[in-house]
Amino acid sequence: MIPDILAERYASKEMKDIWSAEGKIVLERELWIAVMKAQRELGLNISLKDIAAYEKVKGIVRLDKIAERERITRHDVKARIEEFCELAGREQIHKGMTSRDLTECVEQFQVFKSMKLVLFKAASAAILLGEAARKHKSTIIAARTHNVIAQLTTFGKRLASFGEDFLRGIENLEALVKSYPVRGIKGAVGTQLDQLTLFGGDARKAVALDKKICSHLGMKSEFCATGQVYPRTLDFQCLSALYQLGAGASSFAKTLRIMAGAELASEGFAKGQTGSSAMPHKMNSRSCERLNGFHVILRGFMEMAAALAGDQWNEGDVSCSVVRRVALPGAFFAADGLLETFITILCQMRVNEAVIKAECEKYMPFLLTTTILMNAVKRGMGREEAHEIIKFHAVAVADDMRSGKISKNDLLERLAADDRIPLSSKELGEILKAGSSATGLASQQAENFAKRAVALSKKYPGASKFRAASIL
Amino acid sequence: MIPDILAERYASKEMKDIWSAEGKIVLERELWIAVMKAQRELGLNISLKDIAAYEKVKGIVRLDKIAERERITRHDVKARIEEFCELAGREQIHKGMTSRDLTECVEQFQVFKSMKLVLFKAASAAILLGEAARKHKSTIIAARTHNVIAQLTTFGKRLASFGEDFLRGIENLEALVKSYPVRGIKGAVGTQLDQLTLFGGDARKAVALDKKICSHLGMKSEFCATGQVYPRTLDFQCLSALYQLGAGASSFAKTLRIMAGAELASEGFAKGQTGSSAMPHKMNSRSCERLNGFHVILRGFMEMAAALAGDQWNEGDVSCSVVRRVALPGAFFAADGLLETFITILCQMRVNEAVIKAECEKYMPFLLTTTILMNAVKRGMGREEAHEIIKFHAVAVADDMRSGKISKNDLLERLAADDRIPLSSKELGEILKAGSSATGLASQQAENFAKRAVALSKKYPGASKFRAASIL
Amino acid sequence: MIPDILAERYASKEMKDIWSAEGKIVLERELWIAVMKAQRELGLNISLKDIAAYEKVKGIVRLDKIAERERITRHDVKARIEEFCELAGREQIHKGMTSRDLTECVEQFQVFKSMKLVLFKAASAAILLGEAARKHKSTIIAARTHNVIAQLTTFGKRLASFGEDFLRGIENLEALVKSYPVRGIKGAVGTQLDQLTLFGGDARKAVALDKKICSHLGMKSEFCATGQVYPRTLDFQCLSALYQLGAGASSFAKTLRIMAGAELASEGFAKGQTGSSAMPHKMNSRSCERLNGFHVILRGFMEMAAALAGDQWNEGDVSCSVVRRVALPGAFFAADGLLETFITILCQMRVNEAVIKAECEKYMPFLLTTTILMNAVKRGMGREEAHEIIKFHAVAVADDMRSGKISKNDLLERLAADDRIPLSSKELGEILKAGSSATGLASQQAENFAKRAVALSKKYPGASKFRAASIL
Amino acid sequence: MIPDILAERYASKEMKDIWSAEGKIVLERELWIAVMKAQRELGLNISLKDIAAYEKVKGIVRLDKIAERERITRHDVKARIEEFCELAGREQIHKGMTSRDLTECVEQFQVFKSMKLVLFKAASAAILLGEAARKHKSTIIAARTHNVIAQLTTFGKRLASFGEDFLRGIENLEALVKSYPVRGIKGAVGTQLDQLTLFGGDARKAVALDKKICSHLGMKSEFCATGQVYPRTLDFQCLSALYQLGAGASSFAKTLRIMAGAELASEGFAKGQTGSSAMPHKMNSRSCERLNGFHVILRGFMEMAAALAGDQWNEGDVSCSVVRRVALPGAFFAADGLLETFITILCQMRVNEAVIKAECEKYMPFLLTTTILMNAVKRGMGREEAHEIIKFHAVAVADDMRSGKISKNDLLERLAADDRIPLSSKELGEILKAGSSATGLASQQAENFAKRAVALSKKYPGASKFRAASIL
Repeated sequence: MIPDILAERYASKEMKDIWSAEGKIVLERELWIAVMKAQRELGLNISLKDIAAYEKVKGIVRLDKIAERERITRHDVKARIEEFCELAGREQIHKGMTSRDLTECVEQFQVFKSMKLVLFKAASAAILLGEAARKHKSTIIAARTHNVIAQLTTFGKRLASFGEDFLRGIENLEALVKSYPVRGIKGAVGTQLDQLTLFGGDARKAVALDKKICSHLGMKSEFCATGQVYPRTLDFQCLSALYQLGAGASSFAKTLRIMAGAELASEGFAKGQTGSSAMPHKMNSRSCERLNGFHVILRGFMEMAAALAGDQWNEGDVSCSVVRRVALPGAFFAADGLLETFITILCQMRVNEAVIKAECEKYMPFLLTTTILMNAVKRGMGREEAHEIIKFHAVAVADDMRSGKISKNDLLERLAADDRIPLSSKELGEILKAGSSATGLASQQAENFAKRAVALSKKYPGASKFRAASIL
Repeated sequence: MIPDILAERYASKEMKDIWSAEGKIVLERELWIAVMKAQRELGLNISLKDIAAYEKVKGIVRLDKIAERERITRHDVKARIEEFCELAGREQIHKGMTSRDLTECVEQFQVFKSMKLVLFKAASAAILLGEAARKHKSTIIAARTHNVIAQLTTFGKRLASFGEDFLRGIENLEALVKSYPVRGIKGAVGTQLDQLTLFGGDARKAVALDKKICSHLGMKSEFCATGQVYPRTLDFQCLSALYQLGAGASSFAKTLRIMAGAELASEGFAKGQTGSSAMPHKMNSRSCERLNGFHVILRGFMEMAAALAGDQWNEGDVSCSVVRRVALPGAFFAADGLLETFITILCQMRVNEAVIKAECEKYMPFLLTTTILMNAVKRGMGREEAHEIIKFHAVAVADDMRSGKISKNDLLERLAADDRIPLSSKELGEILKAGSSATGLASQQAENFAKRAVALSKKYPGASKFRAASIL
Repeated sequence: MIPDILAERYASKEMKDIWSAEGKIVLERELWIAVMKAQRELGLNISLKDIAAYEKVKGIVRLDKIAERERITRHDVKARIEEFCELAGREQIHKGMTSRDLTECVEQFQVFKSMKLVLFKAASAAILLGEAARKHKSTIIAARTHNVIAQLTTFGKRLASFGEDFLRGIENLEALVKSYPVRGIKGAVGTQLDQLTLFGGDARKAVALDKKICSHLGMKSEFCATGQVYPRTLDFQCLSALYQLGAGASSFAKTLRIMAGAELASEGFAKGQTGSSAMPHKMNSRSCERLNGFHVILRGFMEMAAALAGDQWNEGDVSCSVVRRVALPGAFFAADGLLETFITILCQMRVNEAVIKAECEKYMPFLLTTTILMNAVKRGMGREEAHEIIKFHAVAVADDMRSGKISKNDLLERLAADDRIPLSSKELGEILKAGSSATGLASQQAENFAKRAVALSKKYPGASKFRAASIL
Repeated sequence: MIPDILAERYASKEMKDIWSAEGKIVLERELWIAVMKAQRELGLNISLKDIAAYEKVKGIVRLDKIAERERITRHDVKARIEEFCELAGREQIHKGMTSRDLTECVEQFQVFKSMKLVLFKAASAAILLGEAARKHKSTIIAARTHNVIAQLTTFGKRLASFGEDFLRGIENLEALVKSYPVRGIKGAVGTQLDQLTLFGGDARKAVALDKKICSHLGMKSEFCATGQVYPRTLDFQCLSALYQLGAGASSFAKTLRIMAGAELASEGFAKGQTGSSAMPHKMNSRSCERLNGFHVILRGFMEMAAALAGDQWNEGDVSCSVVRRVALPGAFFAADGLLETFITILCQMRVNEAVIKAECEKYMPFLLTTTILMNAVKRGMGREEAHEIIKFHAVAVADDMRSGKISKNDLLERLAADDRIPLSSKELGEILKAGSSATGLASQQAENFAKRAVALSKKYPGASKFRAASIL
């Protein structure tokens, strides 16, 4: 048998338990039993013995038998009804229900449980990111824009920027979980007719049944009007929320890969790990790359869901069926793998402070051109003129360093020697001295983020202690 | 000049005003002036005369001059700074600011205003949809799943199902507007260093400046830590919210196209309209098709935004620049066009009740097989056996009708003649009679939706009266 | 274990054999052995006994042991090297090779074999489509544009239009197979250095080795310069070719779903099949819907590949690794399932000629408005005036029919009674008579397509007899 | 008016001329005139005077008048017919034609011409890339995989790897241009009925007309059977070919951005250019970022086209209309901008050989671990044992350098001191000496690519001299 690679190689046991064939069938049977109980309470002729007969066999899951039945009926739900009935020796389940009453509710339950699991792990990652931002809130580093040296910042603040993005992703997913509406037992075309008929036209009983089931699933919101199926737009909303959640983590991972290229930091390298079978010295950013890969995968699954949204006909066609079988579990396995990988990286990340410091020193005069420019302007110089002159010298210094003509950055000397700049060599030296530790509000921003991130440990008990399983 | 086809052909004047070059430049200049005023109040050496000089010329927008400057500087913001300064005869703007302080805030303002405009029109469409659902809440129609006849429902309930989807899209966008965070004047790498330097290291002044600007833009939330740019994930969130919003409308439009194929309903056909230059009788679903087209376009722009999310390096690279110039206005023009088209369709839609009724009559025995099945089960028949027999006869009737052998659906007669079915001809006749108007809770569901939709007229004053401009 | 749903539920045995873990490991080992043999022939110190030791155990695939090793080394290829070496009791494989020398070539081999399998099945489907087009080349049907009645055509011609699209997809994939270039044993960064070193700097030997391997894989084209990995653009090209191939089939399936809604045709309904567990009469277009679903899935996987194209750094980063593990087999399983489903539909499709004929009759006067218009123009009437008058009457007739006022289309009578139209009642009657069978070149076009499609049976021996396995 | 930002800011004049409103209208009118001439030759009653009347006014393009007409007719083609007829004072055009006969052919002509223009510029870029690869074929550089130091290669070979990707993109687009099929004058539903009717049922005349038009458009291939519209799959094929073409360029641009971060190379910095208004020293990779941005845009437009492929109903619905108005010109403007940017970068790229050399020296012992490993194996050492020991020392050296403990890479000394490694200090020194210039077949590969690339100058006359317009 060909395994689901995402599930088997990357996803956690808890996530797999939600989506396994066996687990889903047990969930289905519990739903059927709950419906029977509710129908009995509301007056239908179903005996306690009938219910007990089903209860007794609900754990006997024979996937091969079910597959065999489906080959005959060509209808998957019917195959599972027949199997359960034969096991119980009764024909009492699925009364007044259509396939979709069953599958819609069970699938929504899977999605709902998965989103909550994702949130727990995301909280865990956010806490670790917050702790790292706090730890490095004053670690001065050369900020880069357009991937070239810009001004000074701190590494903690850099982490905080990615963290803000990630926190918004969590908040967005939390809001979705809170408002996630279930379809309920609405019948073949959504009119609740079949339950109404079963209950002799008593609308209150049909509505009561629906509420009992909703409560069984643990969700608070429900659709009032749907067709045969709930709007697939909801699946898109879930998968785009997962994609959004992964974005902050993905930008962080890309940046760590770039930093590793300059040895400023790395994702760590465990004992016994092999980077390359051919090049023994290699310590690759494999986990970061994988995280980025998971984000790409999430996007592909989101695309599948996007293609279903807005393409629903009448009371529901089901061209979505095979798509959702693939995209829903796939997306949650990928999100799970992404978060486990993210947590692993955050636990093992190394920051090479000596290399970071050396880089700052090498580029210090460049990192301070904004400050020099502003000081020149304060002295009354025109902004554009000052900009032009500083640029002229900076470009010349860079060219000389790149061609090997000089080995030390002498921008300050050149500026001091240029009469047009109203700053003396001594003043420039003072700017350098003061500027070397001037990172603005970087540290405060990092602390601000850390506080909010670490606070998630209260909302998500256990999240601060959670550690990812050892990844392949 | 090649016009933006979405803007010029489909978008409304209000939306175009937000995104026009002239409009944007005026917004920028207002931001610069606001910054000067704030900086003056906080102690910088900027005179009221300086500010007045800029104020005086802020409306003079010479796009050709700016383009000329950009060809020299190869830097678009610099070109606009120089132009504004030359007009004013001063060099006082943009102090302690980097390009992104300007462009990020102005672009976010454009997005923010556009989202609010979209919400207003969406509310207008929802109200119309609610009114239509109410009007047709008891119009019995043959529901279809898999695009084939299923059971009875009402047209109002069908509208309500699409409406629920659409309402969720509105709620999602409303939540985004509420939490939409602005980047603020954070400086070249997000540390607020330059404003700090300008204010002699006074952190409170740097923070105060930021707050004054935020308030100028009318937004309540702000990022605490960003790099040079705000996380592009936010753009993705906006565009995926637009795509989600369009989904309910798009499913409605596809269904109306299918209904038009059977003449059950249509989007209407205005006086003077031409369906086809070759086939004079044609009354095409052109507006519905267009609506579906806009949804596809939204998806393409969402893709562009999705490719930026999670691909940000360090404190910000700007590979997003050209992408956002295309995708942000494009998505809002498309959303605007989609909603204007949706409103037009809802205003002109025709429902052919005679055709709907004829269809129901033709298929009535089929539409009631679930009810017949349930009655047979009530009489003690095994569910699966009853299903098999009814299916046998139904398929035979369908085959005979399709081959022209019979012209009237005689399923009830065949079932009555089959001894295995414990229902007499008279009982089946009664089921038919009762069933022909049995639409479960369809009407209540339609009314429920209508109430919630129409209630938007309070939240969005003017929305219930808004009508789309005549579309091409 | 969670199975790959696409593989286990929808894909064929032949496709699964290409992508199973066991199959892949055996392919790898054959590659290693081939490399050893080639290296031996080219002078390396590898004995025949060494090679025999590996040959002997190449079929012993212990997935659990390999997984255990990977948990320690955290490097999948190394785990498989160690396993193979321990089985053979030697350390002679993988000399001068890096992981990617192995995995790139083996994965390309999988893709290559999969594309050829897809082509075979596509040819089979095209032949069936050609036969159907021929069979129905003269079956007159009401053509629809914008999903409303337009003019007459034939059903065979409709099939031919989708068929042309599908044939182009086949030709495109054939061209890709022909030009598909293999990476070869290029070493860790693509310079072939390690083989060069092994062969004492003899460039000819390094090149000769590469050629021997290429020939082993059966491909004719190779990359001259690659980095560690071949350009992922190639994967995108493969997956977009699959998506393109599926498009013609997908449009056909959507159209058949719409036709089934009006009972004009259907995908057939097998004995023992159940359409709905709740509505016994239902005969759903489930296979057509599934085909459309597969096309959506292909798009999602194509997206994943698209995200890798153009995002490669230096000599190769491997953020693609997890993505390709998911997207490549997934796409081929989906393409396989799509084609098996397409073949099934084509074998079981039913065309309801009586219903088709009745529809034509109902709308005949509308279907001929173009002809009437042209005849009026021939008589000297202005084209735009004639268009306006015919439109006026046609719209009025349609309105009267839709409101139930009239039950028979009396457009010709109304036109005859309008003096402005220079055509008598008799002449209009003749137009109707002649027009009712006027389908232009529809029949010839259908035959033309059929010829080209059926001709594929020579190019693909066995394709005309191939039948899909019974689908779930 | 809001301009199309891609057209006005980034696209070339030649590309804009193809897609401007005026240009398109003239193309349409030429098609109409050609049809009239052909119809006259084939016997229709159209006088030379009629044709001359149209010829005379074909250049008078009044966009405002046409827009006014469309507001009344709500049909764009009709509006343009009326305008042309009024200008000419005749009603002779568009005989037996439907809107799509006109628009399909004209739009395909635009696509066809655009693809040829793209190919010309792509050839120009490939030639420049080939020349650069040749120039730097022996410039030794540290190859990187996973973005960390791997082995030695040459910069020319790195360029060749991206170049191979790009060349395949060109070949793919060339094949598409060669096989690009035109729809022709097939009538309202593709049966050619209307032309048949015009010609009194003479099939040969209808076919002859079609051929005359095809020849007018300069295309060699045509669809035999289409519906109202040609399969939109063809648009997807075009846009995915553009995306593929951009991929090699995009990977190159990303790599150059990463190289610029380490000052190894850059895209150049023109005189007068400003990198940042706040940081005068900045020399950003703005053109490379923009190129990557264009690639993202191409993807979004490709998505729009992908959503149309496989979603066509019956003889053609036109939900594609607004989508194609946006996606087709948009994609070609973006491709044009991408190639102009690529050419600019290739013309201005700077390679900092001193920095490259310094990097190689710093990491040389690491860059040679593969060679050391292989030499140890040659001496009889077990491969896995040797790998483990070398890795141990290499990781220790890296750690010591990153923590600032050592400043010089002393891996060779540590290996020499380890008795388990069967290589003396002298032997290791020799490996270092020999290895420092060992780049395998890098130079030959670069030359091989260069030859093929430069050879395009024959196939595309003028391409080797073409230079991009100065970009903003």
